[in-house]
Amino acid sequence: MAPPERLDRYPPDLSDEQLYSLVTEIKDWQINHGSLLKVIDTEIEHTVLSHPVGVACFPTLFPRARFSQALDVQEIYNRLYCSVGEDEAWIFNAIRDLIPAEPLADVLWKIHQAAKKSGSVQDISMGIFRSDYMLHLSDEDLDSVPSSKALPETTLKQVEFNSFSCSGGSHANKVANMHHYLTQMGAYNVDDSSFDVESLPANKNIESIASGLALAHRTYGEPRSKLAKQTAVLFIVQPYNFNIADERPIEYALWNREEPVPTYRLDWGPKLLQYTRLTENRELLFQPPWLLSKDPIEISVVYLRAGYEAKEYNPTGYEARLQLEKSAAIKCPSILGHISTFKKIQQALTLPGALEHFLSKSDAAALRETFVPIYPLDKTDAGLYARELVRDKEHSVGYILKPSLEGGGNNVYGEEIPGFLASVPESQWSKYILMKQIDPPMSSNILMSSAGIDSGDVVSELGVLGCCLWKANPSDGGCDMLHNSVAGWTFKTKHADIDEMSVVKGYGCFGTPRLVDI
Amino acid sequence: MAPPERLDRYPPDLSDEQLYSLVTEIKDWQINHGSLLKVIDTEIEHTVLSHPVGVACFPTLFPRARFSQALDVQEIYNRLYCSVGEDEAWIFNAIRDLIPAEPLADVLWKIHQAAKKSGSVQDISMGIFRSDYMLHLSDEDLDSVPSSKALPETTLKQVEFNSFSCSGGSHANKVANMHHYLTQMGAYNVDDSSFDVESLPANKNIESIASGLALAHRTYGEPRSKLAKQTAVLFIVQPYNFNIADERPIEYALWNREEPVPTYRLDWGPKLLQYTRLTENRELLFQPPWLLSKDPIEISVVYLRAGYEAKEYNPTGYEARLQLEKSAAIKCPSILGHISTFKKIQQALTLPGALEHFLSKSDAAALRETFVPIYPLDKTDAGLYARELVRDKEHSVGYILKPSLEGGGNNVYGEEIPGFLASVPESQWSKYILMKQIDPPMSSNILMSSAGIDSGDVVSELGVLGCCLWKANPSDGGCDMLHNSVAGWTFKTKHADIDEMSVVKGYGCFGTPRLVDI
Repeated sequence: MAPPERLDRYPPDLSDEQLYSLVTEIKDWQINHGSLLKVIDTEIEHTVLSHPVGVACFPTLFPRARFSQALDVQEIYNRLYCSVGEDEAWIFNAIRDLIPAEPLADVLWKIHQAAKKSGSVQDISMGIFRSDYMLHLSDEDLDSVPSSKALPETTLKQVEFNSFSCSGGSHANKVANMHHYLTQMGAYNVDDSSFDVESLPANKNIESIASGLALAHRTYGEPRSKLAKQTAVLFIVQPYNFNIADERPIEYALWNREEPVPTYRLDWGPKLLQYTRLTENRELLFQPPWLLSKDPIEISVVYLRAGYEAKEYNPTGYEARLQLEKSAAIKCPSILGHISTFKKIQQALTLPGALEHFLSKSDAAALRETFVPIYPLDKTDAGLYARELVRDKEHSVGYILKPSLEGGGNNVYGEEIPGFLASVPESQWSKYILMKQIDPPMSSNILMSSAGIDSGDVVSELGVLGCCLWKANPSDGGCDMLHNSVAGWTFKTKHADIDEMSVVKGYGCFGTPRLVDI
Repeated sequence: MAPPERLDRYPPDLSDEQLYSLVTEIKDWQINHGSLLKVIDTEIEHTVLSHPVGVACFPTLFPRARFSQALDVQEIYNRLYCSVGEDEAWIFNAIRDLIPAEPLADVLWKIHQAAKKSGSVQDISMGIFRSDYMLHLSDEDLDSVPSSKALPETTLKQVEFNSFSCSGGSHANKVANMHHYLTQMGAYNVDDSSFDVESLPANKNIESIASGLALAHRTYGEPRSKLAKQTAVLFIVQPYNFNIADERPIEYALWNREEPVPTYRLDWGPKLLQYTRLTENRELLFQPPWLLSKDPIEISVVYLRAGYEAKEYNPTGYEARLQLEKSAAIKCPSILGHISTFKKIQQALTLPGALEHFLSKSDAAALRETFVPIYPLDKTDAGLYARELVRDKEHSVGYILKPSLEGGGNNVYGEEIPGFLASVPESQWSKYILMKQIDPPMSSNILMSSAGIDSGDVVSELGVLGCCLWKANPSDGGCDMLHNSVAGWTFKTKHADIDEMSVVKGYGCFGTPRLVDI
């Protein structure tokens, strides 16, 4: 490892020739490994353009202890969200006020109720989760003179928890491999603070996620319907998706296994109802016109990478999702698992005793360490306190108002909150949570995407992927874990002056932490 | 395997939905696996566009026996060209008339002579070869009524032999993997003549070529210069190459080996002289500004993917190639190995007794089976015969006039030959060879590239890659083989009415043979 003092000027200044060589290596690597996005609207029958996904040119300094901590708590988070996903009453209580205000919550809850009426024919569920964190400077460090350490003392704070259609796993895997290659071939040896490839954690997201889906597939077992001779995993995807380089590698990995797992993809929408159907016993049969086998294929696992926007739930979307939910296939995830992704759930889990409802005291404590204060805007005590905070600009500094939907695009920051809320009918306030802002330390990097290349202060977000399979245990209202693992991690970096982390919108860049002992 | 009679209507007719599904699978696979070309002139510092390389949508029917034959003779071809590359007198005799007419032959011979004056400090050479074939209908079959067989009887005929900068290996590898995936996942099961994945031969080009270079690297041994602490393979490439997806995978494979082989790339041209130098003992040292290690790297193997056009040999290009040739690095290939790629050599090897000069009678016979008649246009008996043939349109039908340079872009066909030659001074005729045209059987396929998608009659070219390492044996003027292997194959398909097979120009498409026992 480099002597710590050298980390102060990391990454090193590059000559034009060095930068040219580095970005050429990066672009070529990305083209060869599918670290790409389709260029929107360029796809025609016979061809399509693509360009490299945004990446950080250097690995980003990150404290090893915080990285380990994030990985260490993931299996507890997995257990927590499996349990939440089986606790209908708890979920309803948490989102009761959200349902009338948020169309997606409303339609998902309706589908859940409709499916419940039919009774469940599958007591096993799957989850692919991603818990996102940022480093947080302690208040002391914020005010103190710059320390002599390479990195300041920080704590690990959760930004959000995603239980539905988690993306970025494949891109993160590819970019981690790229930084590994660039380190190995000496692209970063531009001064004498060269670093060892061992400081870059390995990334096996694609293999791990495929392995989790393969386990669910095996757990489903032989075809139950006499009409089908084989089973397969079905990916439900958005049509015309330009981000196929994140989904497809998991399909290829399933086909590439020593015991290949047949995997097909199907667009969300009318095709879903055209090409799948339920048998009397609710096996989900798949028979698209492009696979002219005489026998339909029985779907073992439905993996959803679509259906996360309210607008997808027109009557066809509603019927399609209901059919999946009612089916005997293992859902990744179930409707209740999907609802667990709302930020109202994240907020409800910060309430006193909430974690302890699901976890042991020590596990609850380990998770709570990663929490920042989150408040509802309702009329509970916590809600009234939050309403007080956002009454004026002065007090709302240091908070973020977030809608309960996923993605960071609609957040409102600090002083802008009171004005924004004044424009929203109070009946709609339950859509939002108020979250204490995380103050991450700055780091330096060069970020490169189709939008440009720029060096400067950056902040990073570490996502930890979890993969689990569980069986509902009605006797105690909980769940029996069949599989619980840390599947890997994602690492996104953005310029410090940008609020959004979205990679597909061009703000965030995939990268790799360079772990250092501070 | 499908019953032979079903092959008559292969590939099957596709509905719009089936075609849409198939081409979507193909484009997505290509993006994820770097089966791409950079779009020319779109590269800027921070990004570059790429599009899928042209591919055949279906594997192409090909007789198993002819495929095996092509693989079987490759080790003999390897030995032949290793021997040719060590036989200066034989080469000179073959290209004597070419030198005054062909600038590339002229400059390469000059470099050879200049290097020879310094004496050799490396008696080991490497070759990565590609022998290209087409199927040839026997004259009887040409005239007969269509046979009831799926494929007509054919023989295997060599189109050309490439000993320099052979391309297509990585693309062929990727596309073979793609057809394997598409077959496995049932994309071709559009009627009941589905076929087994076993009928598609495996392709390991990338691994094999990397393995050959790694062996050469190990054979070179420890650094000889005291200035260097490590050795590495150096790829010499054309600047601004849009076909990096064919070169880069070999570099990545070398870095990815269990014992990684350091591999760097360097542009042909001024950088080659700026960043490499010869020590007094002619070790080749590499020290570019983008690798700021204090110590230069000693080059073990120079792999040339540039320098195949006369225009690259301005004074800088001349000096650069001479420096490489004089160095102690193992050259892949040497200058004489490079010269062996001229079609004049191919023609000279068809002369009576030529093969027997290098090979046993039985080996010579095995290669000669793959020859079609090739003539010079000089004043030897063979040349005079050829001059007679091309005197009028009637007799020149069924022949192709080819310049001695590589690539098929400048060929002249049949009736056009007399008119063309009339426009060329007789002193330049020695640049050309006259080759009997190969009559390949038609096959059917759907070809897709950025230029469009079209189904119809196609013809294919099978390339067999060879990889060898040898030591000059001055005692008998021959060479001792240190390694001799079949490295893999390429398979290109074009519409039958197009003369050129160039993939980068958009005519030829990469594909996979579907082997059938006719």
